[in-house]
Amino acid sequence: MLLTNAHVISPGLDLPNASVLIEGGKIAEIANHSSGDLDLGGKMLLPGFIDIHSHGADGADTCDASSESLEHIARTKLKEGVTTWLPTTLTQPQERLVEIVQTVADWADSAPLAVPGIHLEGPFINREQAGAQNPEFVRPPDLNELRELHQIFPLLILSLAPEMPGALNLIREASAMGITPSAAHTKADYATVMAASGYGLKHLTHFGNAMTGLHHREIGVVGAGLLEDCLRLELIADGIHLAPEMLELIFARVLRENIMLITDSVSSSWQPDGDSTLGGLDVEIKDGVARLKDNGALAGSTLRYQHGLRLVQEITGEPLSELVATTSWNQARSLGLPDVGRIEPGYRADLVVLSADFEVERTFVRGE
Amino acid sequence: MLLTNAHVISPGLDLPNASVLIEGGKIAEIANHSSGDLDLGGKMLLPGFIDIHSHGADGADTCDASSESLEHIARTKLKEGVTTWLPTTLTQPQERLVEIVQTVADWADSAPLAVPGIHLEGPFINREQAGAQNPEFVRPPDLNELRELHQIFPLLILSLAPEMPGALNLIREASAMGITPSAAHTKADYATVMAASGYGLKHLTHFGNAMTGLHHREIGVVGAGLLEDCLRLELIADGIHLAPEMLELIFARVLRENIMLITDSVSSSWQPDGDSTLGGLDVEIKDGVARLKDNGALAGSTLRYQHGLRLVQEITGEPLSELVATTSWNQARSLGLPDVGRIEPGYRADLVVLSADFEVERTFVRGE
Repeated sequence: MLLTNAHVISPGLDLPNASVLIEGGKIAEIANHSSGDLDLGGKMLLPGFIDIHSHGADGADTCDASSESLEHIARTKLKEGVTTWLPTTLTQPQERLVEIVQTVADWADSAPLAVPGIHLEGPFINREQAGAQNPEFVRPPDLNELRELHQIFPLLILSLAPEMPGALNLIREASAMGITPSAAHTKADYATVMAASGYGLKHLTHFGNAMTGLHHREIGVVGAGLLEDCLRLELIADGIHLAPEMLELIFARVLRENIMLITDSVSSSWQPDGDSTLGGLDVEIKDGVARLKDNGALAGSTLRYQHGLRLVQEITGEPLSELVATTSWNQARSLGLPDVGRIEPGYRADLVVLSADFEVERTFVRGE
Repeated sequence: MLLTNAHVISPGLDLPNASVLIEGGKIAEIANHSSGDLDLGGKMLLPGFIDIHSHGADGADTCDASSESLEHIARTKLKEGVTTWLPTTLTQPQERLVEIVQTVADWADSAPLAVPGIHLEGPFINREQAGAQNPEFVRPPDLNELRELHQIFPLLILSLAPEMPGALNLIREASAMGITPSAAHTKADYATVMAASGYGLKHLTHFGNAMTGLHHREIGVVGAGLLEDCLRLELIADGIHLAPEMLELIFARVLRENIMLITDSVSSSWQPDGDSTLGGLDVEIKDGVARLKDNGALAGSTLRYQHGLRLVQEITGEPLSELVATTSWNQARSLGLPDVGRIEPGYRADLVVLSADFEVERTFVRGE
């Protein structure tokens, strides 16, 4: 298939009026043919988004442990331009997590987008920073449980609290298994998070949220994220989980290659305001913001992926050819996902067509 | 006078084995004469330090309103390599401030170091962030009081809380009078401090301390300091007022030209541990750390200027030719002090000789 009249934007690349030849699900050539199979009318063509942290969408949740739910989430994420998705779990009982991971394993091959693995958020977190994770099911780090889940289907990210007893060992073992450890729902101080980084911790989950803040006498996990070039940051760019000025600060001061946009979307995304649940907890959606009814804690987001990029572009004013690294390439590099994250010959034809106001017009997975 | 065998370090300059010719109190030439009036034995020769925030030293306080105290502080600061000092006041009653400023005015011409003006810290601060300022004497911004003091002797810095009623107007008027406004002892949020910056606010006083911290949904004054290139930061580099990691973060992420080391030293510096007072409040010094007896708040520092530079060098590992901008040149530029802050022909021969372990061996003011 030959796409013509595309405004191709990829890390370090900005080509108006380009054509993209797709063969065998891969990008074969970028040129400037004037006629082909599909004229994109000058619209932006970006690498498909890689959402490494999303629980659900439009009424469905990964934790439903249902292939129908997974399929519905995947089709909804496609409408956000997401072409690679890590189904993200919540803190749930052990047998339930097994069931969820098994459901993903059975379904993944038939998924309409790439599902290279799972993001296990919890259950090995700090109950005192549970946020919208169900504290009832929080438990100490357990290598056997991790191994059991990983044997069913690859875990790609493990979000845990590095200060819990045994967490450092679990971080080391997870790293050895090819799982990327990420600090989440944590009260760790700066020294603890850096010790964990020595053991293999690489990411900070939904940076800023549910972690130790920056104080000028103890810079905490937030300070570590702002200071240390060995840590990559997940950002929920909805302007709510992080103030616009915080996004501005991060983009101004943190290495671009360490920034990864996520949605952290929950089942109430793509839904009208109203009541919902999350991991067994009651949630109210008001003005598109999901909060626990109990204590008002933010309960995931209703962000659609493309709108995160739009907000970041508005705030930073930077060229999209710089910013698109944060929507796919950085994630691909960090997780070792081959052949995705760029529009270049040899890369998979995972692409999103965006209108000038960042609405998704079309999403291609392997050229389809 | 010809200094020989000096290791000359100035912003952007690192010359081992240099000679410095001083004529008429100014630097006349930097060369490599091998014999002269004084052989420095290869020791480091830096621009004299400019301490824009120091209340007192060795038992004496600017607020004593005594020329003997001022003289004693000045001679003690010379032992720290300080060649330009802004006597810094505390929140005191109006008539007392008049008396203090008058005392400085009467003494300044005979001072053994340069005293180009006063740093007025308070009284127009936020009582809820008084820290070690006496809350009893906090009062609303008052332009007449500011004018009266400024007519007696130039105020160079006004540390105030920009959220107080009338503060923005005072900031504008102070700027017009050539006074640099600085946010201090403040509960301002990010938006307020940036509005103040539009009115002329330029500095953040003892950055991190007694100001709104960074939160990921409201980045506060600390966030403004980390983000905004139009704000200069006073840093107390004692490792106590700011954690070493916070210093590392600031040096890694903030424009170098916006960093200014200060001591914020009080009368208990250069003194043994024990009891002291500050602005009428009882203070206890323990292990060199001064705290209010009442609530344990840090009550200024006992830092000696040269040790701040040493700590910053240890933490950042950066060349001194980069770091010395933060001990003199940035201050000189920000306050418009002519002819100081560099070792270059035409600049004043305000110099400090440092041993390899950053102890002050000699201080020159105008070559003396």
